[in-house]
Amino acid sequence: MGENKRIVLVGAGNVATHLGMAWQKAGYEIVQVYSRTSDSALELANKLGVAYTTSLEGICTDADVYVVMVKDAVLQELIPSVVKGREDALFVHTAGSMPMSVWEGHALRHGVLYPMQTFSKARKVDFASVSFFVEANGDSDLMVLKDMASALSPKVYEATSAQRTSLHMAAVFACNFTNHMYALSARLLEKNGLPFDAMLPLIDETARKVHELHPQDAQTGPAVRRDENVMGKHLTMLTDEPEIKEIYKMISDSIQKL
Amino acid sequence: MGENKRIVLVGAGNVATHLGMAWQKAGYEIVQVYSRTSDSALELANKLGVAYTTSLEGICTDADVYVVMVKDAVLQELIPSVVKGREDALFVHTAGSMPMSVWEGHALRHGVLYPMQTFSKARKVDFASVSFFVEANGDSDLMVLKDMASALSPKVYEATSAQRTSLHMAAVFACNFTNHMYALSARLLEKNGLPFDAMLPLIDETARKVHELHPQDAQTGPAVRRDENVMGKHLTMLTDEPEIKEIYKMISDSIQKL
Repeated sequence: MGENKRIVLVGAGNVATHLGMAWQKAGYEIVQVYSRTSDSALELANKLGVAYTTSLEGICTDADVYVVMVKDAVLQELIPSVVKGREDALFVHTAGSMPMSVWEGHALRHGVLYPMQTFSKARKVDFASVSFFVEANGDSDLMVLKDMASALSPKVYEATSAQRTSLHMAAVFACNFTNHMYALSARLLEKNGLPFDAMLPLIDETARKVHELHPQDAQTGPAVRRDENVMGKHLTMLTDEPEIKEIYKMISDSIQKL
Repeated sequence: MGENKRIVLVGAGNVATHLGMAWQKAGYEIVQVYSRTSDSALELANKLGVAYTTSLEGICTDADVYVVMVKDAVLQELIPSVVKGREDALFVHTAGSMPMSVWEGHALRHGVLYPMQTFSKARKVDFASVSFFVEANGDSDLMVLKDMASALSPKVYEATSAQRTSLHMAAVFACNFTNHMYALSARLLEKNGLPFDAMLPLIDETARKVHELHPQDAQTGPAVRRDENVMGKHLTMLTDEPEIKEIYKMISDSIQKL
């Protein structure tokens, strides 16, 4: 079915890059890339071997689906200009935290396609293990979005805007904040001339554990043991890192309360 | 070589359980289990098919190695009684954050064997992927500890007490605090009737990414994008969770500073 849908990518960041390449591989026709920044537009357009534009007026008018993948703040500004002159098409954004209603009053046919994953340009994404959450304001467009997601992953779910917002916020904790814990760990190790690589087996096991145990049951360490001795020592060691020290205190507190 | 060493496990918690079983399997003779709590002592002794005691005086005097695996606060109290009457043996603790010097003035032969991993009773540990850090006050005892660790894992390193303390603190961030991020994520999802399982692909990818990218380069999400719109929305959604809200703010700040 994918071969029939002609897609424009509005945005050329990590999400646009990975989704665009995956859809093209799955047989969808990517007809154009838009980005305000010509370097980004050019880079992704070259990867896909398609045209690009850096002006909103330059976006072609004859595509079937316009997938907008830009910062949330920019999304709302962009919507009127992206829709104008293309009113018959299907408009979609990929932002976990933006409701579908942002399209109301602008595009008749609209929806959301949210891939819950962390995208870095430097790293391939295995879409087969990514959960997609889709929503649309019409049944046939919902089918279009389900097809577009199913072309990339077997894990496709319908989710309302409210559910998706909760998912997105929970993902910030499980992914973005988790990664920051890795980053703080790396900083502390490097300060002491120790390689971050030593931490990888522990990081892997910490992730694997919650496939079997609820995270609350998987909790270990000085805070949950209420080992004031160890915690006191760590806080002393963090004297010259006042911000990391505050984080240490606050998370330890939170572990004890939960 | 392991067959010659007769080991007493002082402590019957997660670490003692996993190490004791692994050493026994590797051919070491576990001769006895000590725990203050008779339920714990009995449970581990039964698993190993060995004797147990709940009194310090009841610890046998003829073992080669006494491995003390108790809370750090308890360790220092316990040391004199554990050593007394057994002065010729090798004494070891497994605490990442305790210096080797805690044994000084008590046991002539002493050291540390620190497995850097997160142990839960309900979950098997694959020791082959655990890093062990060992230290001893004599060359031949260092060899004994290297052998004991090498019987379980190929990843055995020497580390000073200062290095080990840094490793341990970094592990609190990479493992314990990371797991708490999972727990907060689970709490937010469950409050909204969504299953934590949906988060597992994201958790796995977040861990996999730092095998290839430095955590700072792997960072994604609203904080590093400085997407105030999304962050503001999340903070509003967390109004009824004031503690989680504070954590959200503090970690987002820290991401932006790092």
